[in-house]
Amino acid sequence: MDRIKAIVPTDKGAYARAKARWDSIAKPLGSFGLLEEAVCRLAAVTGSEDIDISKRCAAVMCADHGVVAEGVTQCGSEVTAECAAAIAEGRSNINAVAERFGIDVVAVDVGIGRDVRCDRLIDRKVACGTADIARGAAMTSEQAERALTVGMDIIGELKAKGYGLIITGEMGIGNTTSVSAIASVLLGLPPERVTGRGAGLSSEGLSRKLKAVQRAIAVNRPDPRDPYDVLRKLGGFEIAAMTGMFLGGAYYRVPVVIDGVISAAAAALACMTEPLCGEYMLASHISHEPASEGLLRICGQRAVIDAELRLGEGTGGALLVPLLDGALALYNNSHRFAETAIERYVELK
Amino acid sequence: MDRIKAIVPTDKGAYARAKARWDSIAKPLGSFGLLEEAVCRLAAVTGSEDIDISKRCAAVMCADHGVVAEGVTQCGSEVTAECAAAIAEGRSNINAVAERFGIDVVAVDVGIGRDVRCDRLIDRKVACGTADIARGAAMTSEQAERALTVGMDIIGELKAKGYGLIITGEMGIGNTTSVSAIASVLLGLPPERVTGRGAGLSSEGLSRKLKAVQRAIAVNRPDPRDPYDVLRKLGGFEIAAMTGMFLGGAYYRVPVVIDGVISAAAAALACMTEPLCGEYMLASHISHEPASEGLLRICGQRAVIDAELRLGEGTGGALLVPLLDGALALYNNSHRFAETAIERYVELK
Repeated sequence: MDRIKAIVPTDKGAYARAKARWDSIAKPLGSFGLLEEAVCRLAAVTGSEDIDISKRCAAVMCADHGVVAEGVTQCGSEVTAECAAAIAEGRSNINAVAERFGIDVVAVDVGIGRDVRCDRLIDRKVACGTADIARGAAMTSEQAERALTVGMDIIGELKAKGYGLIITGEMGIGNTTSVSAIASVLLGLPPERVTGRGAGLSSEGLSRKLKAVQRAIAVNRPDPRDPYDVLRKLGGFEIAAMTGMFLGGAYYRVPVVIDGVISAAAAALACMTEPLCGEYMLASHISHEPASEGLLRICGQRAVIDAELRLGEGTGGALLVPLLDGALALYNNSHRFAETAIERYVELK
Repeated sequence: MDRIKAIVPTDKGAYARAKARWDSIAKPLGSFGLLEEAVCRLAAVTGSEDIDISKRCAAVMCADHGVVAEGVTQCGSEVTAECAAAIAEGRSNINAVAERFGIDVVAVDVGIGRDVRCDRLIDRKVACGTADIARGAAMTSEQAERALTVGMDIIGELKAKGYGLIITGEMGIGNTTSVSAIASVLLGLPPERVTGRGAGLSSEGLSRKLKAVQRAIAVNRPDPRDPYDVLRKLGGFEIAAMTGMFLGGAYYRVPVVIDGVISAAAAALACMTEPLCGEYMLASHISHEPASEGLLRICGQRAVIDAELRLGEGTGGALLVPLLDGALALYNNSHRFAETAIERYVELK
């Protein structure tokens, strides 16, 4: 994990130059709110106030969860493979949304439970699903490290292809159970406070899910101060890979967008591993799942979209992209504004 | 005001058909949250589940406020005219953002304090600014009615030109003072709870603004149950015109987007005039100004963007448009999804 040790802070000079460009625009100072700040942070990540996110990609990490055996989900593990293939082939939800915003999509098999016959699915399989966290650790140390490496490598590869913004996405039936356990440990909250209905569970299903979360924590006794221990014992391969993506974003200096609660858990684990990671990520939406807010707080992030989204696949993260595009449209027009007759609007503040 | 009496409820059948189309998509039911609901509401407004918002327009109402004489703003009234001309000529903030999202922009002079030499500014001037609300009523009954009519007419004209979605915007130095007074009366809250820094006022300025709001209410004694009385005594011509836009949206059956706090005040006044109006409007963002939430509540609306925006000109409303585009990209792909192998994801709920 030499790459984690090599992470450095973002470029505060570039942040200040971006802020100065905002302040040159004929409008009340700071009036584009958190979107002004997001643009400044993009500048700090890349080290330049000339920001280019025209080439962007959603990378969807896919894996299965042994805990599905506890009856915690509304559909079976086979759906992970079906959806992963659909995403890879451009037939799923994220593809429709991403196409609208000029976002490319890649799908990665980090640990799907079966072999998927799909050439376009990137094969980085660590194992055929995690072990059941209600009965023991999700993965071995070696597996956890491999999954983290998958995520970091993906960022390096996408950066080499010229992508200036990467959106995290996931597909993994059962993964909200894993994340509820992780959130309970990281936030020090009882499982019932951070366990939700996921994709739309019945009350009976929710009760089974809650029991599975409680058992996972009791059986594994993860150390709340050790993100690696929490990840290995309670995580999923896609969650580990996404944690690697956030670490990779910081190492390769590419902004990485947080999607929903699964992604926020990975972001929190990355920030606990290396707090500088938080400077390289951007939150998109606050998810309907109860743990979202606390996990984003660990990352020092505030979401700008609040729309009860819980679709996953990176769809919520993709929705941040046009908001950034809108902010950049304004930001990149500052020179035009400098030539207008309304400088007074700024000067009279 | 025959048009107000002619307002009817939206088409609940079209809402249900849009909901059914959402439910046919291979994803957890309702998982696109408030954006699914927004699409259903667009269907209800137009009466068809085939939704077309490809032609959309931001209509920016511009006017001046006599209360500026009380020292409640950081810049002078002349800025309204300068910005209105810049918006009309495509040189301002809303133009940069709107261009990115394929939104046309029109600017309307409903009551700018001086003559503006700008052919592209639509001239519907009611008077050269309102009277100072800290010393009496903002406008006469006849003026209020004319300004309301301007807004309704604009919607009718834009609909005739084929626009399927209209975003409200405003430019009017001093208008947050007017809206603080309106919000205080409508929400039954003391002025200090609903008076903010507007475009970025100093603490001294804020204190003058608060005194002006208190005096405006004391001098005018508006009837909180009579939106017309509140509007005439405390409003601005652009606020009256925007109120007319929301009433017009309901009459002409065109969805109208609420922007920030100024727009939310107009939306609340429209809903108090005719509660059915609420079915025809869509909230975009929750503004930094303290009155926003209560005013949106009067309209039965919840914002999906929470980014501390306070730029005005319709820029926040414009940011809702790509989110609707993203939701529609998903919605319009339902037929494609019906042909995939992953129907089970829905059926197993």
